[in-house]
Amino acid sequence: MVAEMTGKSKLCQQIEEEIQWLSQFGADERNGVTRLLYTDEWYSAQEALQNKMKQLQLETYYDDVGNLFGRLNGTCSAKEVILVGSHVDTVKYGGKYDGAFGIIAGIIAAGYLKKKYGLPKKTIEVVSLCEEEGSRFPITYWGSGNINGIYDITRSTKIIDQHAISLQQAMHRLGFGNGTYIKPVRDDITHFIELHIEQGKQLEKSGLDIGIVSSIVGQKRFTVSVTGESNHAGTTPMKHRKDALFVSCQLITQLIELSKRYNEHLYVTIGKLNVTPNIANVIPGSVQFSIDVRHHEQEILEEVETTINQLVKKIMQKSDMKIEIDRWMSEKPVRMDNYLSEISKNISSEKNMMYMELVSGAGHDSQVFGQFTPTCLLFVPSQGGISHSPKEYTSGEQLEKGVKLLIDLLYKLAY
Amino acid sequence: MVAEMTGKSKLCQQIEEEIQWLSQFGADERNGVTRLLYTDEWYSAQEALQNKMKQLQLETYYDDVGNLFGRLNGTCSAKEVILVGSHVDTVKYGGKYDGAFGIIAGIIAAGYLKKKYGLPKKTIEVVSLCEEEGSRFPITYWGSGNINGIYDITRSTKIIDQHAISLQQAMHRLGFGNGTYIKPVRDDITHFIELHIEQGKQLEKSGLDIGIVSSIVGQKRFTVSVTGESNHAGTTPMKHRKDALFVSCQLITQLIELSKRYNEHLYVTIGKLNVTPNIANVIPGSVQFSIDVRHHEQEILEEVETTINQLVKKIMQKSDMKIEIDRWMSEKPVRMDNYLSEISKNISSEKNMMYMELVSGAGHDSQVFGQFTPTCLLFVPSQGGISHSPKEYTSGEQLEKGVKLLIDLLYKLAY
Repeated sequence: MVAEMTGKSKLCQQIEEEIQWLSQFGADERNGVTRLLYTDEWYSAQEALQNKMKQLQLETYYDDVGNLFGRLNGTCSAKEVILVGSHVDTVKYGGKYDGAFGIIAGIIAAGYLKKKYGLPKKTIEVVSLCEEEGSRFPITYWGSGNINGIYDITRSTKIIDQHAISLQQAMHRLGFGNGTYIKPVRDDITHFIELHIEQGKQLEKSGLDIGIVSSIVGQKRFTVSVTGESNHAGTTPMKHRKDALFVSCQLITQLIELSKRYNEHLYVTIGKLNVTPNIANVIPGSVQFSIDVRHHEQEILEEVETTINQLVKKIMQKSDMKIEIDRWMSEKPVRMDNYLSEISKNISSEKNMMYMELVSGAGHDSQVFGQFTPTCLLFVPSQGGISHSPKEYTSGEQLEKGVKLLIDLLYKLAY
Repeated sequence: MVAEMTGKSKLCQQIEEEIQWLSQFGADERNGVTRLLYTDEWYSAQEALQNKMKQLQLETYYDDVGNLFGRLNGTCSAKEVILVGSHVDTVKYGGKYDGAFGIIAGIIAAGYLKKKYGLPKKTIEVVSLCEEEGSRFPITYWGSGNINGIYDITRSTKIIDQHAISLQQAMHRLGFGNGTYIKPVRDDITHFIELHIEQGKQLEKSGLDIGIVSSIVGQKRFTVSVTGESNHAGTTPMKHRKDALFVSCQLITQLIELSKRYNEHLYVTIGKLNVTPNIANVIPGSVQFSIDVRHHEQEILEEVETTINQLVKKIMQKSDMKIEIDRWMSEKPVRMDNYLSEISKNISSEKNMMYMELVSGAGHDSQVFGQFTPTCLLFVPSQGGISHSPKEYTSGEQLEKGVKLLIDLLYKLAY
């Protein structure tokens, strides 16, 4: 089909084609993409992206954990790098857009700028970050984390996947992790820009084109363990029971009800709950469940933790049961850069794109970069808010608007 | 150890020894008993019991499903049979007393009466019922059910265990189920008497010797399926969620709270609950849970079912989620025989045994017999109320009181 017949611009077609092209590396039996860190599928995607970058005359290189870079050297201040990109890994049975779009967009934008304006004043680098999802190894942000120096690569012997292969073994298999390539940690990055699908419904619901992220939420995660007493359902009077599930249900109901009233930006989720022994005619002896709390203000996260502890204490006293609560994650909210947001807003307005500022409830590589470097996270809509699924979809026209914004943003920063 | 040294009576010692003796057939690695229907362990127990009965000069025979009988022929009305016994099968990793005690007690009582008074006027038969627990095949009361004609033996080809062996194949392996033995169904039983451990704490808590069961509860069991919408915990605002777990917790909390206030004899249990997809950062898309309702009055069971349906309807309307409820079991309460209860009370009083009338919240073979025949279910205390566990325990002295009551009861009925 040619552009004239579809009404699609050349850029739009190019984006659609390249998204499709990249999705073949790791294409899975569910019509989705499964590209787990350091697998053959993952490596074939990185190699293909390197070729793509080379075709556009970007200087390419890997770092020692397998982050792939394509560089346009700046003519004035080559040592100041504006980094643009996202992650190449996917979840199991993921979609074609999550992560991939940010890389494709970066390559197209760099190629476009190079062709139209020649080399920039400041260096632009496109990055295909090796890992963000935590789908193979129990670690997330392995790509951006190494660039920002928050990981110690020697720990990689202790992190193992479900087949007992260590992160180090997996790296070594592909020639990474043994000093062949440059060290990942960087001090030359002045800005990080990430274009991503929203993975939510806010843009779609509002009928908007662009989301300019003001903050990425902080998260606290807890495991709650309720210990009651397992007993026969037919011989233990209700007033003598220590029913761990009943107490858990009270706790969850009260917590969610409180959270709903608390603050519309507060997200509290109990996603996982396991009952022991989980037999219809036995009173549950113990229950374990997760609490996932997200908000973009640290103060509110702390308040919610206090509330949870008070609630647990109250219910524990009332029920005479043991309730233990373990906070195993506490990540602070990260603000995106105001200056980059303002430029993004101005460009959107100039181009008649409808935008909104929003908070990202999902984690992104920008969350790691944002702690060290002025960072800009931009969203395009996700159909139905669906992500981490073969059903993930954003139209070419919507992707195109994101890429146009990215091109102008890079132009303003680098030329 | 001799009786004089322990202070235990000969009868007490005999009971303890025979309980211990029977527990060797199917003794498992957890120091419990695993004697599943038609296994070698099960068969060795029945064969050993048959020998034991023969030693006491009982006439022994099997029926075609493997119920084992030991008979003292009545001198006046031989065709009127007073049946006494319980089930020989156990749960996996069960105890030494559940079922076994009722058989041992019956054999000892019959042997004692025969020795002391000769043959009875009415026939006494001791039965070792082949199956009650439903631990191997998804069917319960296979022994008493066949005696009372509620099962069709031809169905046995369709009932399979976890290794895909049919009930029929399992029977045939041991020579049962093919007409070699007499048909199980009986019309000559005038009374059924079962002595059993309580499997609850009521006697222990009250410091009593004997429980005389007035009724066995009826049961209704339901499976509730709540269908919401699985979504990302970080990108779906709480007011837009269809959280199947939150709704389930509300339902369970309200149901248990209502049930606690309703009637002290009402037992409502949610023992099993499964969340899908059960991932900490994903809003639960669906939840399935069980409801087990028990009471000794059918009217109350019906009222509770109505309450559950109303509650589900109310919460479904409020939450805009789909909630399906499937009642897959509805067993009516069964009253034990008043006349047999009165005799048992009188004997207990005469013997200075402390007794109470109680409702059995657990099912027993008496529940099947009680629908067709005057039936008497008698309990001795269970330490800590523990059953279906290697920790099941009742002292020899407590067992002895039950056996003494049984001897006198049989004497009054048969001599």
